[in-house]
Amino acid sequence: MTAAIAEAPVAGIDHPFVKALTRVIRAEDSYGSWEKLSDAEVLKDYIVTKEQRREIPIIDDPDPDILWRVEKFYSAVAIAIEQATGRMASPMMKMSHEGFGRVILTAGRLVVVVKSLRDVHRFGFDDFAKLGEAGQKLVDEATSMIAEFPQVADT
Amino acid sequence: MTAAIAEAPVAGIDHPFVKALTRVIRAEDSYGSWEKLSDAEVLKDYIVTKEQRREIPIIDDPDPDILWRVEKFYSAVAIAIEQATGRMASPMMKMSHEGFGRVILTAGRLVVVVKSLRDVHRFGFDDFAKLGEAGQKLVDEATSMIAEFPQVADT
Repeated sequence: MTAAIAEAPVAGIDHPFVKALTRVIRAEDSYGSWEKLSDAEVLKDYIVTKEQRREIPIIDDPDPDILWRVEKFYSAVAIAIEQATGRMASPMMKMSHEGFGRVILTAGRLVVVVKSLRDVHRFGFDDFAKLGEAGQKLVDEATSMIAEFPQVADT
Repeated sequence: MTAAIAEAPVAGIDHPFVKALTRVIRAEDSYGSWEKLSDAEVLKDYIVTKEQRREIPIIDDPDPDILWRVEKFYSAVAIAIEQATGRMASPMMKMSHEGFGRVILTAGRLVVVVKSLRDVHRFGFDDFAKLGEAGQKLVDEATSMIAEFPQVADT
């Protein structure tokens, strides 16, 4: 029975973007500490339930762990963009210590994604399906920008 | 005689880009401490002569003052781009603590300037004329990018 519970699929964990993010996070595991963890366990800090969110102060400074998670999220978006379009995308993030800022992803001379960040100390998603949707939305934005201005992405 | 020496023009200080940079730096002078300084004095840390450069170690971490100067330099490029093209440009800088990184300036969805940074602890220019040329080169790059892809800069 225990084995069956351990193998029960977690909804949304198979979303292609969530898989890309899992690969990004696991690539940081230099010491193999997370090898025995499931994907859902590796990504668990990306999930902030409504109950957890209520416990977080409205205003706070983001800690380095959260900034790291935000960075890895956009690295995964960059990788998913490359998978979808064949073009390398690079993320750049500018963030105040108070948790607001801006992230852009560029492909060649084209800004394929631009996103304002605020309340980064509250960064997280209701569940893995929502995490997947949020990443995919940015990948779709990039894909349509590249389709519209391919020559700029090639410059 | 002293007055005449004080008023002697410094070569290159009237370059349009150098003037833009002067305005950016003076705008940071919240307490009026630099009001009595000449433009050349306000910008003096941007000048690193060959003799001074020889004193700087080949490899070193940039201190916060230098990072501040690099940031203001690219803010001045952004302002000069707006003057030249009528389009707002925003700089984003990503820098390792070891002094290498990348800066990009975007106008709309267009990357108008991209520049790799390295050895930032040695950031500086031989004289004001060289400072003006370096800034103007980036403004010209931005101007020709916007002329080539105006619809992307408007997106």
